[in-house]
Amino acid sequence: MLEEMGKAAKRASYRLAVLSTAQKDRALAMIADFLEQECESILMANRLDVDNARQGGMSEALLDRLALNETRLAAIASDVRQVCRLSDPVGRVIDGSVLDNGLTLERRRVPLGVVGVIYEARPNVTIDVATLCLKTGNAVILRGGKETHHTNQAMVKVVQRALEQAGLPGDAIQAIENPDRALVAEMLKLDRYIDMLIPRGGAGLHKLCRENSTIPVITGGIGVCHIYVDADIHFDSALNVIENAKTQRPSTCNTVETLLVSQAVAASFLPALSVKMQEAGVTLHACPRCLPLLQSGPAAVLPLQGAELDDEWLSLDLNVVMVGDLDGAIEHIREHGTGHSDAILTQTMAHADRFVREVDSAAVYVNASTRFTDGGQFGLGAEVAVSTQKLHARGPMGLEALTTYKWIGRGDNLVRR
Amino acid sequence: MLEEMGKAAKRASYRLAVLSTAQKDRALAMIADFLEQECESILMANRLDVDNARQGGMSEALLDRLALNETRLAAIASDVRQVCRLSDPVGRVIDGSVLDNGLTLERRRVPLGVVGVIYEARPNVTIDVATLCLKTGNAVILRGGKETHHTNQAMVKVVQRALEQAGLPGDAIQAIENPDRALVAEMLKLDRYIDMLIPRGGAGLHKLCRENSTIPVITGGIGVCHIYVDADIHFDSALNVIENAKTQRPSTCNTVETLLVSQAVAASFLPALSVKMQEAGVTLHACPRCLPLLQSGPAAVLPLQGAELDDEWLSLDLNVVMVGDLDGAIEHIREHGTGHSDAILTQTMAHADRFVREVDSAAVYVNASTRFTDGGQFGLGAEVAVSTQKLHARGPMGLEALTTYKWIGRGDNLVRR
Repeated sequence: MLEEMGKAAKRASYRLAVLSTAQKDRALAMIADFLEQECESILMANRLDVDNARQGGMSEALLDRLALNETRLAAIASDVRQVCRLSDPVGRVIDGSVLDNGLTLERRRVPLGVVGVIYEARPNVTIDVATLCLKTGNAVILRGGKETHHTNQAMVKVVQRALEQAGLPGDAIQAIENPDRALVAEMLKLDRYIDMLIPRGGAGLHKLCRENSTIPVITGGIGVCHIYVDADIHFDSALNVIENAKTQRPSTCNTVETLLVSQAVAASFLPALSVKMQEAGVTLHACPRCLPLLQSGPAAVLPLQGAELDDEWLSLDLNVVMVGDLDGAIEHIREHGTGHSDAILTQTMAHADRFVREVDSAAVYVNASTRFTDGGQFGLGAEVAVSTQKLHARGPMGLEALTTYKWIGRGDNLVRR
Repeated sequence: MLEEMGKAAKRASYRLAVLSTAQKDRALAMIADFLEQECESILMANRLDVDNARQGGMSEALLDRLALNETRLAAIASDVRQVCRLSDPVGRVIDGSVLDNGLTLERRRVPLGVVGVIYEARPNVTIDVATLCLKTGNAVILRGGKETHHTNQAMVKVVQRALEQAGLPGDAIQAIENPDRALVAEMLKLDRYIDMLIPRGGAGLHKLCRENSTIPVITGGIGVCHIYVDADIHFDSALNVIENAKTQRPSTCNTVETLLVSQAVAASFLPALSVKMQEAGVTLHACPRCLPLLQSGPAAVLPLQGAELDDEWLSLDLNVVMVGDLDGAIEHIREHGTGHSDAILTQTMAHADRFVREVDSAAVYVNASTRFTDGGQFGLGAEVAVSTQKLHARGPMGLEALTTYKWIGRGDNLVRR
């Protein structure tokens, strides 16, 4: 069955690849309209998923993420209209020249072809990914979580109807409906039809894909992010950045998980940190050298367990580790970081420059919160994923990351000498 | 052991990443000098490899590819000096802006980190890859074929001595010396240390890497390339391009393997093709419709076997297939092509445009030979590999394909709202 879906997606991708931006935007507008018009069928399917999940014991927080209502669906439709307004990278010439050998050469952006996406509970991802792929002329095969099974099915049906109404192949967007997990393993081997695979979910899903896929995989989304507090900082400003990086939305991958504090400033800074973190409701996990300096402060503090340095908290918890100086901080990040987002707070330009050059992460910051690592914040307009690998795309992936390029050579019956 | 090599490579990569272009070029110049000065030890090791290979029954053609002499080693040293002259992509700013949220953002090219290369018999690849990686600030772990074992070992020793003389870590360039094939399997799982894997060899090696590697792999190098002969061509010019694409160097991946001939021109064109191909020593493999039109010509012609459409000849053999028109040609290429290089010979602009847009290959040509797909020919100065996948790099990979980028954000203690 997947073989058939793959073939159909590949066929659809040929048609999508030659569409003009206007044609794609018309289809996107129609998808937005249909999502609103067929609101009832989607919400009905969603209620089924929510009821099943509640019976299965899903927590209220996750149920809330899963549930749709008219307002949320309208927001999803509005996001689709937003995608219409983004600039289409397809067809852009990257570079080109007339070469000494006589060849007129250009490198032009083209769609990847077929994108595979495996994702977990959030139903908005379905429309999000489908529309970003459509905008870039890619066909997509979606594999959502079983919790959103009925919702996804209903939404994909609506999208397919909109596509056909717009004169485009419905197969441009397909979802694997059978919840059998064996199909994921099969999907990972469809390299004949799928050009890029994006897993969106936890570390386990990424590992599964990396280890089993014969399709190129974009891995990412796991962020053990650091902030290094240098010796010469202004306490108040630094504490604001730390609070923002930890508490603005703790469950995200760009949230800071470990604070590295220069030993030169630890004795005076840590008590101030404790006050601020207590106000923000943050629990500290302190290394043996920081622990005594924090224990007299108001914030909750626990002894840091070694393994906690290598995992995301995704909660109002923060590791605090004393380091000798910048070298110690860089060393720590190399050892425990995931190459996502890391920041230095400093007034010393030489330290900022060294941090930027020597910390090998997708995003490095000087005197700014790690929370900025995001397609929207970076001005990309949208985000398919955040990559922490180094090939193809790194950090927030916008529309351009859904394209590749093609070399186009022209001559007058030109031969190579 | 590989674990240790990986760690050492990663450590070396941190030092390479912060070198200036001048420092890297000095080390490259020293490598070139050392290769010439220590010519004797390399040639002695090479004689050992050649003797072993001859005893093992290697063909004279392959032995010639394996053998070094003073002239060839001087040419390799001269290639190294050529790499000094190439422009260094590391440190280049790709784009940047000051965003509405206050962040000063730039995207800057940085080395990938550690590159792994698995390759077969040619000893020049060792120096080629090592120097391109050094130029882009990447450490490299090489795994050569057993046929070049002693040569590679000797060359890598010389390179390491040159690096140390230049004050750089010798571990920047390491070779796996143990010929045990199990080590390849182990290497494919070193994703903790190796950032990109480049297999350079036949289809089997690429498949092995794609199916077993947890490291992102660049696959490519396999080219079932096509030329479509449209109805309105000038015979002489077209025949020149076809001859060039087939015979200029038949063993390469950008050599044409299948000619697709429009049925409108087949009856008049195929006899002329036969004459030209006979002169060039090419054997034709004709589809049932072309066969009768070629059998009266001077060129050797055989009935085409189906599977021959999906494999590289890499020899003076050429498939000839009649297609209805441009649609048939595009359909055929989608079915049998490997996404490498395909060309149309036509005078009709609309046909050229459709071919360029609808054929999904790394390089598409209008009235030019497929033989141009090459880093040198494309003006990239050098080539690490030719990619036929779509992620990261497509077609000839120059120095830029050995880099990634890093997002650098600066603020004045900036927080996300």
